[in-house]
Amino acid sequence: MSRITSVRVRDVRFPTSRQLDGSDAVNVAPDYSAAHVTVTTSDGESGQALVFTCGRGNEVVAAAIRSYGELLTGHSTDALIHDLGGASRLLVHDAQLRWLGPEKGVSHMACGALVNALWDLRARREGLPLWLLLSRMAPEELVDAVDFTHLRDTLTPQEALDLLRAGQQGREERIGLLRREGYPAYTTTPGWLGYSDEKLVRLSRQAVADGFGMIKLKVGGDPEDDRRRLRLAREAVGPDVRISVDANQRWESGEAVERVRALAEFDPWWIEEPTSTDDILGHAAIRRGVAPVKVATGEAVANRIVFKQLLAAGAIDVMQIDATRVAGVNENLANLLLAAKFEVPVCPHAGGVGLCELVQHFSFFDHAAVSGSMEGRSIEFVDHLHEHFTDPVRVVGGRYAAPEAPGIGAGMHAESLDTWEYPDGDGWQADRSGLHREGAGR
Amino acid sequence: MSRITSVRVRDVRFPTSRQLDGSDAVNVAPDYSAAHVTVTTSDGESGQALVFTCGRGNEVVAAAIRSYGELLTGHSTDALIHDLGGASRLLVHDAQLRWLGPEKGVSHMACGALVNALWDLRARREGLPLWLLLSRMAPEELVDAVDFTHLRDTLTPQEALDLLRAGQQGREERIGLLRREGYPAYTTTPGWLGYSDEKLVRLSRQAVADGFGMIKLKVGGDPEDDRRRLRLAREAVGPDVRISVDANQRWESGEAVERVRALAEFDPWWIEEPTSTDDILGHAAIRRGVAPVKVATGEAVANRIVFKQLLAAGAIDVMQIDATRVAGVNENLANLLLAAKFEVPVCPHAGGVGLCELVQHFSFFDHAAVSGSMEGRSIEFVDHLHEHFTDPVRVVGGRYAAPEAPGIGAGMHAESLDTWEYPDGDGWQADRSGLHREGAGR
Repeated sequence: MSRITSVRVRDVRFPTSRQLDGSDAVNVAPDYSAAHVTVTTSDGESGQALVFTCGRGNEVVAAAIRSYGELLTGHSTDALIHDLGGASRLLVHDAQLRWLGPEKGVSHMACGALVNALWDLRARREGLPLWLLLSRMAPEELVDAVDFTHLRDTLTPQEALDLLRAGQQGREERIGLLRREGYPAYTTTPGWLGYSDEKLVRLSRQAVADGFGMIKLKVGGDPEDDRRRLRLAREAVGPDVRISVDANQRWESGEAVERVRALAEFDPWWIEEPTSTDDILGHAAIRRGVAPVKVATGEAVANRIVFKQLLAAGAIDVMQIDATRVAGVNENLANLLLAAKFEVPVCPHAGGVGLCELVQHFSFFDHAAVSGSMEGRSIEFVDHLHEHFTDPVRVVGGRYAAPEAPGIGAGMHAESLDTWEYPDGDGWQADRSGLHREGAGR
Repeated sequence: MSRITSVRVRDVRFPTSRQLDGSDAVNVAPDYSAAHVTVTTSDGESGQALVFTCGRGNEVVAAAIRSYGELLTGHSTDALIHDLGGASRLLVHDAQLRWLGPEKGVSHMACGALVNALWDLRARREGLPLWLLLSRMAPEELVDAVDFTHLRDTLTPQEALDLLRAGQQGREERIGLLRREGYPAYTTTPGWLGYSDEKLVRLSRQAVADGFGMIKLKVGGDPEDDRRRLRLAREAVGPDVRISVDANQRWESGEAVERVRALAEFDPWWIEEPTSTDDILGHAAIRRGVAPVKVATGEAVANRIVFKQLLAAGAIDVMQIDATRVAGVNENLANLLLAAKFEVPVCPHAGGVGLCELVQHFSFFDHAAVSGSMEGRSIEFVDHLHEHFTDPVRVVGGRYAAPEAPGIGAGMHAESLDTWEYPDGDGWQADRSGLHREGAGR
């Protein structure tokens, strides 16, 4: 019988802070990083996943994945990947480890990496990309994978089953459409806070030329800088391309309302992370204050329980799930079902390292078998670091092409893992000696 | 000039799961543990602190403290301990590490340990127990230590200053009273879920004989077990001693209301952690449903932003701060000030390893210089593992005696640290060979 024999974790970092790629009002100089995990079985199968971080601390996530990984070692592979709900509970509800969260932060991200590696193993065995595996799983099996703990006052297993059964109608037609036409993307590439005005304008124009219907700008620094940058971007893209803005939790809730109103003349589509994503009541107040500008959040939302409340309180217009913040595919199933119940569109957070590769699957699945709609929906895209992945995203004409490679998308080239392993990979040794300062990680 | 020269972290665990001390509906068999940190300066001064955990995962917290510790090494000791607000920001808002939370879970607990070690250093240098140091600090300096980020819509620095200035009136008289008469305690010793009925009754009677005005029972298993245990406890303590119950987040919100109502005839004082402490709206619904039984929570509340909402939403009657869950003394100052603004009593969570020793300081400070009241307030007490501390709590006649030793209370005996260091301390080696199965950790 196949068993889990090893959990290997690698601390991989890219020196992106050298060029301020990814810079915003809070993450001023991130080194985009991944705690990358490979779960191997006695039969030689493997599943891969990762947790994205901003650099320092990647070693802590790696340590947490190793600790949780001990709970999987020795288990039957089949038992785990054919009861992924049980596999998630084994990790998330471990009676001693649970104290570290519960269900939030480092420990939760570590659970997510291992859960995702098991999904990757399952999808590879079935020869399917994750989204297609999910789209063709029976609604009953999907519901079994969801952890309804602390959700049942808002979403019952029966309601979830009803939503998924309704999503079966027209599923194959939508799968065909997704494979032919892809799924809408928007781009954050032009809008990093560390970029010059010239670079902002040039990349904004390029985004329109590339077919994107929305760009996103980082805000939350000096108010006049925000206004100038938004004016420049609006002039560059014209009136018909949407511009969203992202404050990365920089503001107090009252301040957020004032700051967003001050940008109203440039017609922002949504304000993202106006304040702490722990602040459900704050988001609700901001949403009331900034309408018709929409409120979006999610990349830092710790778990399904916080999303449940953001939706129930009418605090968000757009749910932004993240592939590596929560406890893996299972918890994002819960998040998609919550969004479907409240009829709130999901526009996943991406960028970083591998987040585009992973998170695209949820939007494709959502369209194929849950919401069945693309209305107001798009997947974030940032053109960074894809070359390190064995199955990089393909974004053409402002749309993600349907991923067709088996798995969840976390496979990285051995050379990338070796070169950028921190602190001793060749890339980091060269960086320290000054050789790699230009073009680092590109 | 004195500088921080080292941050030493030790993984210390006690095999408490052998006797089901500390067992509840969620934490079924914890090994009470501490990630214990000592920060040392070039002048040979030191500050100590710890993070409590339930066993597995203690090594992850230890790793996080080491990672954050690198941010302190080399800094001026004086600059840190005379600007403890700045010291907290240096850790909590580190632009790369912040992603790991933000401000929650493992990373936040690690920040708390280091912040607390700096307070310990300051208090030892001044020769004062923490509560007295805080009680005699100028309101302005206390306000400077508080991080008002994402609080300002509910509590401004000026409001905090006004509260603290008002708390100065009669301060010295209250300090005298606290030193003479101590502060009320309640005990959870009788109520662990793994204890037999006989042990429950015996320890409940003992608690009354020892002078406690309240005991607490774990609930959340089988409903009939909860009723039987509560009936037995009520018979044992009589009608005048309060009995609170604690479900450790076991329930859905609707379920919690039903389960608490089913216990009403035994007159429970509060229901603690009826559901996920992330669930602010759930707590509010439960509170409406179970009145006049009070709702208490806090040991798992991730940060001040969640407490802010629990208070603003009218979701709790009792705030239970924890000494090692949040970002240290500074964040608990914020929590005490929030409670004071909303006039909600604070009854700290304790037990575990060292939590009584640490958290008592906040209640003494609250009485001396913030709320000035003991009405409805008491500090949890569990008679476990105090013998490992250099300055153990003294609880006499159902009251905590005012701590007088300088520092925050986290000092542990070198022999305890050596014996119970995991996994190679003598205690654990003996435990593995079966020698220590009885009386472990006592």
